[in-house]
Amino acid sequence: MTLKLFKHGRIYTPLTGRDPAAGGEQGKLAFYEDGCFLVDNGQFAAVGAMADVEKCLEDRCPDQEFDLEGAAVIPGFVDPHTHACFAARRETEFSMRLEGKSYLEILKAGGGILSSVRSVRSASDQELFDFSRALLASTLFYGTTTIEIKSGYGLDTETELRMLRVIDRLGRETPQTVVPTFMGAHAVPEEFKDNPEGYVSLLREDMLPAIAEQGIARFCDIFCEEGVFSVEQSRRVLQRAREWGFRLKVHADEVHDLGGAAMAGEMRAVSAEHLLAASDAGIAAMAKEGVVAVLLPATAYSLRKPFARARTMIEKGVPVALATDLNPGSCFCESMPFVFSLAVMGMELTPEEALTASTLNAAWAIGMSREAGSIEPGKMADFLVLDGETPAVFAYASGARPIRSVWKLGECVA
Amino acid sequence: MTLKLFKHGRIYTPLTGRDPAAGGEQGKLAFYEDGCFLVDNGQFAAVGAMADVEKCLEDRCPDQEFDLEGAAVIPGFVDPHTHACFAARRETEFSMRLEGKSYLEILKAGGGILSSVRSVRSASDQELFDFSRALLASTLFYGTTTIEIKSGYGLDTETELRMLRVIDRLGRETPQTVVPTFMGAHAVPEEFKDNPEGYVSLLREDMLPAIAEQGIARFCDIFCEEGVFSVEQSRRVLQRAREWGFRLKVHADEVHDLGGAAMAGEMRAVSAEHLLAASDAGIAAMAKEGVVAVLLPATAYSLRKPFARARTMIEKGVPVALATDLNPGSCFCESMPFVFSLAVMGMELTPEEALTASTLNAAWAIGMSREAGSIEPGKMADFLVLDGETPAVFAYASGARPIRSVWKLGECVA
Repeated sequence: MTLKLFKHGRIYTPLTGRDPAAGGEQGKLAFYEDGCFLVDNGQFAAVGAMADVEKCLEDRCPDQEFDLEGAAVIPGFVDPHTHACFAARRETEFSMRLEGKSYLEILKAGGGILSSVRSVRSASDQELFDFSRALLASTLFYGTTTIEIKSGYGLDTETELRMLRVIDRLGRETPQTVVPTFMGAHAVPEEFKDNPEGYVSLLREDMLPAIAEQGIARFCDIFCEEGVFSVEQSRRVLQRAREWGFRLKVHADEVHDLGGAAMAGEMRAVSAEHLLAASDAGIAAMAKEGVVAVLLPATAYSLRKPFARARTMIEKGVPVALATDLNPGSCFCESMPFVFSLAVMGMELTPEEALTASTLNAAWAIGMSREAGSIEPGKMADFLVLDGETPAVFAYASGARPIRSVWKLGECVA
Repeated sequence: MTLKLFKHGRIYTPLTGRDPAAGGEQGKLAFYEDGCFLVDNGQFAAVGAMADVEKCLEDRCPDQEFDLEGAAVIPGFVDPHTHACFAARRETEFSMRLEGKSYLEILKAGGGILSSVRSVRSASDQELFDFSRALLASTLFYGTTTIEIKSGYGLDTETELRMLRVIDRLGRETPQTVVPTFMGAHAVPEEFKDNPEGYVSLLREDMLPAIAEQGIARFCDIFCEEGVFSVEQSRRVLQRAREWGFRLKVHADEVHDLGGAAMAGEMRAVSAEHLLAASDAGIAAMAKEGVVAVLLPATAYSLRKPFARARTMIEKGVPVALATDLNPGSCFCESMPFVFSLAVMGMELTPEEALTASTLNAAWAIGMSREAGSIEPGKMADFLVLDGETPAVFAYASGARPIRSVWKLGECVA
C-alpha cells in the first residue's frame, strides 16, 4: 500500500457522467493549472488544487512525491478497437495495395485477411502470445494503458477459443488492462466460402455457446459489410450473442452504407465502429440509442479514404470515441497520438473533443468507464505526462511522440 | 581506424548520378536482398553481395561484425529544410489557429514569426544552443543523420550572425552533419514594417557581406510570398547573395502563385521549397534548370492545406526532395518517417520515390550529394536499420517509428 503524491501538473481530464459524453459535453474538460493528485495503491485517491488534495491526506504522509514541473497530464489512452492478436505482419500486401493491385489480385497472391487466419491457425499459443506481446509493448510506449483486443483470425471454434486464451494471458502478463472481444464473425473462412449461411449457423450454434462457456470475452463484434455479413445475418448473430450474455459491437458502414449503424442502434449495441459511409439515418439511430461511434481515422488514412463524419456525429449527439484499429492488413497503427492528430487535423475535432474521445468515451465503448478513461478518485491511476503544455501537443507535434512518461496503476511503465 | 562488417541486410539505396534523380530515375533503387557492407573509419568502403564485399576485404580482418538479421537497411535521412534553431515553441498560437483565429488575431496576441524573433533575440547563445540541441536529438531519434538549418529568427545583422554561430556549433557538438543556411530574408522585422525596402537594403548592403565574411552559411534562402518579399525584391537579394558566393534557395509559391518557382529556375537556384501553389509554368522552369523541389507535406498537413503536386513534378522531370520544415509555428515536425508516410499516402509517391526524395535528392538540395544520401563507397556511413522488410514500412506503420537503430559515421547513435 504505497501512497504517491504528484504535484505541479497541468491536469486535463474529462469527467465521468451518467452516459458517454456527447454533443457539447464531448469538449468539456476539467483543468487544474497547478494541479496535483494522490495515488493510493494504484488508484487515484484525490485530484485538484494542492489545498484540496492535502485535505484528503489528513495525517498520512506520502511515501513518494513527484514534481511534474508544469507538464500537461492526461488520462492514459484507452484504445477501444484493435485486432492486436496476430502472428505476422502483411507488409508485402501493403506494398501491392500501394501499387494499385486489386483486392482480388492480393487474395490470389496469398494476401488478405485469410492469410492472417492461416498464420494464426498455424502459430503455437506461445508464438501468438510473443508476437502480440511485442505489439502491446509498442502501444504502451505510445501511451495506451487500456486496450480492447478482438479475436477473429481463427474463424473456427477451437482457434477462436485459443485466441481468446492468448488475449486473456496478454491481460495478465503485460502492464496494460486488456478487454477481450469475440469476433468469430470477422470474415467467412475459406472452408465456408460456398456456404456462408453454414458459417452463420456455426457461429450461432457452436461458437457462441463455447465462447460464452469459456467466459473470457465480454463483447461480441461482427463485420457487417457487403461480401462479409449482411445486416440480416448480423442481426441474427448478435441476437444470439445477446442471449448468451455478450454486449454488442458492430463493424458498420465501413465501405458501403448497408444500414449497419441503424442496426447497431436498433440492437442497442454499445458501439458501432468505422462508419466511413454511415448515413444521416444511421447517425440519428445511434444518437437516439446512445451508441458510441468508434472512429478509426488511421484506417481511412491507410486506405486513402475520406474520414468518417465526426463533426456531424458530434453535432447530432452521438458520443465519439477514437481507436487505432491496429491490425496486420488495412491499418498497422500502434500509435494513439497519431490517431489523435488525424482526428484533430483531418476530422476537425477540437483537442478537447479528441481527448474525451481517446480516453473516457473510449472507456465507455468497452464497458470500462468506471475503471478507466479519466483522472478521478477511484479509477486506475493510468496517466501520461506530456512533453507539452496542452493536449493539443499531439496535433502540434504530429507524427512524433510528445510523451515524457506513461504510468499504469501509479507505476512508470514507459 | 576501425573496420566494421554488416551482414544479412536487405539493403535499399538510390545511386548517385551526375544530377539529382528525376522522372523515372527517382523511383529506381539498388537492392541487395542478402546484402552486406563494409565501414572503414566511418565511411562505406564496399556494398553488395557477400562475395563482392569479401573481395574488398582482401587480407584484412574486420574489427567488428554485425548481423542485420534480414532487416531492411536504408541511408540515413537527409532533412534539407528546417528552421531548427529557435528558443521557444508556439503551442498556444497553434491552439488559437485550431480555434479558427486569424493570423492578425494571433499577431495581436503576440504570436506569429515575430514572437520567435523576440525570443531568439533575447535568448543567450547557450539557451539557443541548448533548446536547438534537444530538437536535433529528437530528429536523430527519427533517423535524420544530416540536417539543414536556416537562420532567420534574428532579422538583424548581429542576431543572424549569432544564430549561424549556434548552428555551426550544433554541427560540431551533435552527432549530425549540419548544413547552415542564411535566411535573414525570412520576414520583415518589426522595426522595418513601414519601410520594407529599407530592410532589403540592409540585407544587400550590410547583412550579406557580414554573413559572407563570417564564412559559416553555404546557402542563402528567401521567403518569396505576398506580404513578405516580392519576386522582384527576392531577385535583388538573391543576385547580391550570388555575388557573395552563396548558393541559392527560395521559399516559393507556398500560399500564392507569385511566380517564385519560375524565378528559382531563372536564378538557377539549387532548390525551391514549399510550392503548394506552384503553376505549371513554374514547374516547367524548375525542370528546365534542374532545380530541386523540396516538398514539405507535414506543413500542408499542419495548415490543413492540399499537398504540393508531387506527381506532376515527377512527371515533368523535376527532382523531388522531402523535408520536415521543423519550426515553432506552421509545422513542429521532428519526424522524417512521418513526412515519408505523408508523401506516400497523401502525395502518392511510391515508397521508392519517397526514399530517393528523403535521402539522395535531399542531399542534392543542400550540396551534400557526394558525402551523404546513399549507401555507396566513399560516403559517410550513415544508415538506418528498419523494423520492417522494405522502406514501405514507413507508410505501413504510419505515425510510428519503425526504426531499430540509427547509425552515423558507422556508430550506433539511437
